[in-house]
Amino acid sequence: MRRKEGWQNCSPWVKVMVADCGRYFAERRREVEARLEQLVPAQPLPGCPATLNAAMRYSLLAGGKRLRPLLLLAAADTVADSCGRFVDFACALEMIHAFSLIHDDLPAMDDDDYRRGRLTNHKVFGEAMAILAGDGLLAAAFEVMAAVPAVGAEKKIGVIREIAAATGLSGMVAGQVLDMEAEGKAISAEQLRTVHAQKTGALFVAAVRCGGILAGADREQLAALTEFGRKFGLAFQISDDVLDVCGDRDKLGKPVGSDDKNAKSTYVTLYGLDTARQLAGRTLDEAQAALDGFGPQAALLTFLVEQMRNRDH
Amino acid sequence: MRRKEGWQNCSPWVKVMVADCGRYFAERRREVEARLEQLVPAQPLPGCPATLNAAMRYSLLAGGKRLRPLLLLAAADTVADSCGRFVDFACALEMIHAFSLIHDDLPAMDDDDYRRGRLTNHKVFGEAMAILAGDGLLAAAFEVMAAVPAVGAEKKIGVIREIAAATGLSGMVAGQVLDMEAEGKAISAEQLRTVHAQKTGALFVAAVRCGGILAGADREQLAALTEFGRKFGLAFQISDDVLDVCGDRDKLGKPVGSDDKNAKSTYVTLYGLDTARQLAGRTLDEAQAALDGFGPQAALLTFLVEQMRNRDH
Repeated sequence: MRRKEGWQNCSPWVKVMVADCGRYFAERRREVEARLEQLVPAQPLPGCPATLNAAMRYSLLAGGKRLRPLLLLAAADTVADSCGRFVDFACALEMIHAFSLIHDDLPAMDDDDYRRGRLTNHKVFGEAMAILAGDGLLAAAFEVMAAVPAVGAEKKIGVIREIAAATGLSGMVAGQVLDMEAEGKAISAEQLRTVHAQKTGALFVAAVRCGGILAGADREQLAALTEFGRKFGLAFQISDDVLDVCGDRDKLGKPVGSDDKNAKSTYVTLYGLDTARQLAGRTLDEAQAALDGFGPQAALLTFLVEQMRNRDH
Repeated sequence: MRRKEGWQNCSPWVKVMVADCGRYFAERRREVEARLEQLVPAQPLPGCPATLNAAMRYSLLAGGKRLRPLLLLAAADTVADSCGRFVDFACALEMIHAFSLIHDDLPAMDDDDYRRGRLTNHKVFGEAMAILAGDGLLAAAFEVMAAVPAVGAEKKIGVIREIAAATGLSGMVAGQVLDMEAEGKAISAEQLRTVHAQKTGALFVAAVRCGGILAGADREQLAALTEFGRKFGLAFQISDDVLDVCGDRDKLGKPVGSDDKNAKSTYVTLYGLDTARQLAGRTLDEAQAALDGFGPQAALLTFLVEQMRNRDH
């Protein structure tokens, strides 16, 4: 793979960051948190009712790994020095992720009472407000992306298209439907893979692809990031299933065994715990291998792969 | 107001249409219906589960006046000959409108059993699927807009930004929150106006503004369209309240008196039936007046004003 000029001429700052990935991600996370706090501020923006604002903030600012935003930012810096211009796109991804969690937790859906160690949105604000908080976050995500000043319209349209597709009918929403329809049924490994490729995988893939698009990735680089996103997302899901069986309730912030309660097919029910663990490891190896062409700047995404290997929540 | 070159040089076809508005709108409506049928086709697009597809189609293709799409298309043709290039944006507006109806009807929200003379979405497909069908339509609307080939990225971004804002935290979703919070309370005329300006008005305003933006409206034209959209949307809401009291159940496709059932403040409870009717008429006069600067091509939007005057459903 050809190295992009953009990165060769990058600022010394990015070179330091690649050498010190822990600090890079801590910094990016702080930026994302700070920007989310501005995008949905404690003092509601004009026209936004206080209750709606509170409901959105409750879920959006509840911590979490911010994995999708970090994937977008790291993918961009893997291709070229992004100089922090893409944080609003990263935040938009997190708003869409928060929307999906709020709606998935609803009584009509997974009916969950806890998320990240706190009551779920509808338990605090009621069902109607939770539905609307999700709707509001989804719409606001597109508003935020369309409004970014320092990025050209062509790139913004490319990213909006990727993210809308990953959210909707061939992505997250479709995956949630398949997931619900599979409940209580024995499904094949192939079917399980399809469910998760849409429900969680699509947004991971969109995160790294959008980082690439924004940073001006060429076709080959975009293909490598796509492959990385697919494998990384799959490994995330397998490790989720493993943690649901043998994780620590306090670290997870939700009860273990919820898949079992909901009679869900998982990588553990399908393969057994040990094989599922091995599968997660092999899939992470494949994610890593997809980064080969990027040279030293692959260090950023590699760091996330290693974190996923040692994931306990 | 300066006349735009674009319209002066328009095709004979548009000139005929302005002279025969009834045919113009019948044609535009057919185009919208046909395109909606392609955008969410009977044979689901790749990745879209059949049940989700059926739930979306049930609400999206249930007829209705298609008023928002027609406003967008007519506003565009008022400014310059659009040559039918904007129908996908019109369809995206209708997808967002359908999303809002599905979610508003949910048991946790207005808990309505009928809409346009048929059972509401959740009554047929269940609550979970109705929530997801709404989510899917909202995400798909942005995907559709981002994918339009014949329109420049700058314009697409402008339109996406308008529509996302009108949908979310300062628009429809916010208005639905205010509407819920006002239930069972006596609210002032000013508060009622704010609720409806957000809940229904914002998307009307976005429809005509987006038509203007796409057709290359100048600042003055855009201001005139904005004023038109505000007044038109307000008149729509007042006439809605009037019809809820004295409309015909069969024509409306829903029970009359539902505002009363839900203890909602309306223009009728606030002003009485006669004054509300007069107010609707005066507001339509103001909408009409906003079109003064457009000359003969104002005939298109004027036609919609006259239809609204004689509205019975």
